Amino acid sequence: MVKKIILLTNDDGIEAKGIKTLYNALVRNGNWDIWIVAPDRERSAVGHAITVFDPISVKKEFIDGIFCGYAVDGTPADCVKLAIAAIFERKPDLLISGINRGANVGKNIIYSGTVSAATEGTIYNVPSIAVSMNNLKDTDYTFAAEFTKNIANLLLNSGSLPERMLLNINIPDASADKIKGVKVTYQSGMAFKDVFIKREDPRGREYYWMNGELAEAEEDENNDYTALKNNYISITPIQHDMTDYKRLDYFKVKLNLFKLNE
Amino acid sequence: MVKKIILLTNDDGIEAKGIKTLYNALVRNGNWDIWIVAPDRERSAVGHAITVFDPISVKKEFIDGIFCGYAVDGTPADCVKLAIAAIFERKPDLLISGINRGANVGKNIIYSGTVSAATEGTIYNVPSIAVSMNNLKDTDYTFAAEFTKNIANLLLNSGSLPERMLLNINIPDASADKIKGVKVTYQSGMAFKDVFIKREDPRGREYYWMNGELAEAEEDENNDYTALKNNYISITPIQHDMTDYKRLDYFKVKLNLFKLNE
Repeated sequence: MVKKIILLTNDDGIEAKGIKTLYNALVRNGNWDIWIVAPDRERSAVGHAITVFDPISVKKEFIDGIFCGYAVDGTPADCVKLAIAAIFERKPDLLISGINRGANVGKNIIYSGTVSAATEGTIYNVPSIAVSMNNLKDTDYTFAAEFTKNIANLLLNSGSLPERMLLNINIPDASADKIKGVKVTYQSGMAFKDVFIKREDPRGREYYWMNGELAEAEEDENNDYTALKNNYISITPIQHDMTDYKRLDYFKVKLNLFKLNE
Repeated sequence: MVKKIILLTNDDGIEAKGIKTLYNALVRNGNWDIWIVAPDRERSAVGHAITVFDPISVKKEFIDGIFCGYAVDGTPADCVKLAIAAIFERKPDLLISGINRGANVGKNIIYSGTVSAATEGTIYNVPSIAVSMNNLKDTDYTFAAEFTKNIANLLLNSGSLPERMLLNINIPDASADKIKGVKVTYQSGMAFKDVFIKREDPRGREYYWMNGELAEAEEDENNDYTALKNNYISITPIQHDMTDYKRLDYFKVKLNLFKLNE
């Protein structure tokens, strides 16, 4: 029997603690092969950027005695494109992006390299999951890695997965006995509040530092923000048709198409 | 009466022909003030990247004798954040991102700096539109600019706009008499087919060039791809809740929450 293949990537870089811990948990299972293609350095907040005007270097490296992987001088989305369209001969059976340092819930997933890598997987119709830990600093990823392994097992052994499956998983930074369970959630409206700090350089030229503050969001036990806050693991199925179907007819009237079409 | 304010930005850079032509069309109306905050150079395919680890320089410049604007050493999303949260004292009434060199339809809008700038506007609840021309090379933007001015007029004079309004407009590169009309469309599944060209540098290290090819998509007179192909102006209302609502219940069963929650 051909072994299933899991493609690992992230946006914190190939040497990040999250991806190493995840690899260690997955490799102990042994029922799959694991490919690793990840940025050669931290690439957070790159959104769904891709590199089209520069060459992208790819180096096979042995990382900290743990795994061999491809270190890419590019974005998380670049890594996934390269893995699937250039480096390997076949598609992986599952893509896992993470484990990310910091939650990806609410509107902020639009900025997330972690989620964009998983999204890129679904564009190639590879079932994909993004996994993030609710702590902006490195912490103990052991439980999160074990949970992710269980999800991978469950998905890979449960028959066919739906087309373009994309799960955005966020894990509380708490000990296993404090975690209350798992919830399938919807994406909340949580957004960072942008704060800019204005400075002048020695020649009097202006520049800014961006410094986001976490904003509150509406509480609803079924959204990602609230589930995570209450120590539930949040799993949000996402998709990328952004059409605002509810308002199609509204805009047909509002935009006065008859007049515009004259 | 306080004049309405339009914020212009783009991803081709503050000196691009598209934004200059758009400004020239808008300024002839005179019923609004125009602010310009745009990247200091081309920032295509950056997706929704934001700059969080580096300072962002902002210079007020007089561009080609046409307009005064803020040139930002950052991404399109950075420009919008800076304009709204740092540079100006009040919110604009409408944000226009464009006119972009190249269409933004189908799945490719996820990579688009043009669309991400407009998305960022809606995060601040500023009604926003992205405008793109269906030609990857600079062309005559006069008709597109006039059309955009008419849309701006229509929107700003039609009473209150819906919360988080975001329109993705694509304009055929054809003379006015060849354009068949306007369609309110949904986002098609059109995606680039990624092609990587593998090279070696003089020291034998591998690198890749990404070279996307336009792929065909399903034809449906109501999607963005088909409308544009048939010389209609396509207007797709989009939104950014990516929750896959249709599959929430499916995943509740599939993920066997009872077991995971034990």
